[in-house]
Amino acid sequence: MPRPQRSAEEYVRGIRAGDRVVLAQAITLVESARPEHQVLAQTVIQQLLDTPNSKPKTQNSKLKTQNSKKPNLRIGVTGAPGVGKSTFIEALGMLLVAQGRQVAVLAIDPSSSLSRGSILGDKTRMERLSASEQAFIRPSPAGDSLGGVARKTRETILLVEAAGYDTVFVETVGVGQSETAVHRMTDVFVLLLLPGAGDELQGIKRGIVEMADILAVNKADGDRIKLANQARAHYLNATHLLPPAPSGWAPRVLACSSQDGAGIPEVWAAMEEYWECVQANGFFTKNRRQQAQYWLQEALESGLRSAFYGHPEVKRQLAALEPEVLAGRVSPFAAAAQVLRSAGFIPLPPEV
Amino acid sequence: MPRPQRSAEEYVRGIRAGDRVVLAQAITLVESARPEHQVLAQTVIQQLLDTPNSKPKTQNSKLKTQNSKKPNLRIGVTGAPGVGKSTFIEALGMLLVAQGRQVAVLAIDPSSSLSRGSILGDKTRMERLSASEQAFIRPSPAGDSLGGVARKTRETILLVEAAGYDTVFVETVGVGQSETAVHRMTDVFVLLLLPGAGDELQGIKRGIVEMADILAVNKADGDRIKLANQARAHYLNATHLLPPAPSGWAPRVLACSSQDGAGIPEVWAAMEEYWECVQANGFFTKNRRQQAQYWLQEALESGLRSAFYGHPEVKRQLAALEPEVLAGRVSPFAAAAQVLRSAGFIPLPPEV
Repeated sequence: MPRPQRSAEEYVRGIRAGDRVVLAQAITLVESARPEHQVLAQTVIQQLLDTPNSKPKTQNSKLKTQNSKKPNLRIGVTGAPGVGKSTFIEALGMLLVAQGRQVAVLAIDPSSSLSRGSILGDKTRMERLSASEQAFIRPSPAGDSLGGVARKTRETILLVEAAGYDTVFVETVGVGQSETAVHRMTDVFVLLLLPGAGDELQGIKRGIVEMADILAVNKADGDRIKLANQARAHYLNATHLLPPAPSGWAPRVLACSSQDGAGIPEVWAAMEEYWECVQANGFFTKNRRQQAQYWLQEALESGLRSAFYGHPEVKRQLAALEPEVLAGRVSPFAAAAQVLRSAGFIPLPPEV
Repeated sequence: MPRPQRSAEEYVRGIRAGDRVVLAQAITLVESARPEHQVLAQTVIQQLLDTPNSKPKTQNSKLKTQNSKKPNLRIGVTGAPGVGKSTFIEALGMLLVAQGRQVAVLAIDPSSSLSRGSILGDKTRMERLSASEQAFIRPSPAGDSLGGVARKTRETILLVEAAGYDTVFVETVGVGQSETAVHRMTDVFVLLLLPGAGDELQGIKRGIVEMADILAVNKADGDRIKLANQARAHYLNATHLLPPAPSGWAPRVLACSSQDGAGIPEVWAAMEEYWECVQANGFFTKNRRQQAQYWLQEALESGLRSAFYGHPEVKRQLAALEPEVLAGRVSPFAAAAQVLRSAGFIPLPPEV
């Protein structure tokens, strides 16, 4: 990785100062698989967490005061390919930039592992937003597993927030379990829908509608306004059938056009209302705590699994025992007990 | 656990001889949480697997020859409470007993952990079948987790098969993920449905219809025959919309009455057809291998987790670090790395 070697302190200073080059390099460090990069990245993150940013970014200190009561907001955005996620984020992002907010756009795209970045890879997709000094756009990290990709994005959120970005979008396409991962690292979850009623449910994976706090029928412009309203009515009905969400918030269904901007302020107003609701009832804090707990457990257990399956004795025993188990000659439970014992992971029970 | 202490060899001999008392005691051993019972149970199971039963149970050797080409069949049965699972199993079980088959009925009911056995607990629910010498009925094991309960049932299948039972029913109510667990330990999966079309889908959890190889609308008798046929048409339509199953088998939708026996032979005929299909295309064997692999991984990882979270240093560190992570003062990933290192589960990366 050709890059000037920096100390943890240099990264921290640069990020705090809002230096976009240093921020980008720190994210590259987080995304690196090399153990020494990982250790350095953790040191940087920990120093940033130890000394929270007290002063807002200078260039917008005047504007920022109007948002001073609002902490960082993490916004998850998902929807089928072609629904217009990038244009939606750009339209909403430009509105927020005009309000003085600092906007970061991240992405989780497990499908990009092969193509090395299919979403957000082409920065021209958010031309206006990427030209703004108040916006920072980062393509999806490459990785060989959703868990790895999601973890990097979750850590990148901490970096961009430390650099002063108060609104973080995390975009994902509906591949595998990526929506669940995004849902677990954001405060509010937006599902974008296509105009036209009824059939849309087919294209949306089960459980995604239930996760959404805000459903927005995008492309509600020109000839599609009527279809968009049909879709809106359809999803209004569908969300009424859902059990109450743990947030205490009833999902809002809106129509908007990322192209002409109609309805975008209303989407933001709904997010602000959501924010007021979950601040008032304590869900905002509770949810962030639960998310931290989830990522702790996830990190512990994925680390545990890779240590275990990488253990030479485990590898050796599994290579010998697995064919016996598959052929039905050894019970899976007996084989598991033997492998665990041989690796010293559990105390040997008394012999009988 | 008051029981005459037996050696592994005594259990094996008794089970092989079809001694129902010894079989019941061996199952109790499998269900025991005590480590020395677990070790003995594994020894028994391994000895049974090492020396497969060559001769059929003497009492039915004549009848058994007609089924000699058919290996043990494991049948999962699920459906909403009140659909008549027990009466269905009894009706089908009596038919199989009359054909000379040996029938065992097991259950997974995670909800019974508190009540200590709500399904099959009352043996009078299968009065006729439980009176048959060719049938063996065992209530759901108690346990504090679905994983534990499912594991015990999966091991019990091996015991009853070693005792000569060639047809094993595993019944479950639709609680939590119990259908998935049953699906992962059986060869053919039967979903029982109630008469009346349309609304039934509401009561059935998502994904269950997709798992079913055979859907049977039960209680198709008296006034309900018309409703049952409506439900059958409804589900025929629903299954036509499903993507092809990995088994290569198109799910069959039937109507039956466990009360008057109508349609029960047809359900069995469909199972035999299913069996022919998956024997011919190799899915039967492939599926059993995949199931063994699943249970191996499940046993490895649950053993790993309990060893890890039970480790004194892990407990100590987690107690100190978890509140910091939840409060957002320490990154979940940094905390996880520290806990894993302290417990010696991963090599310490080079210091920076």
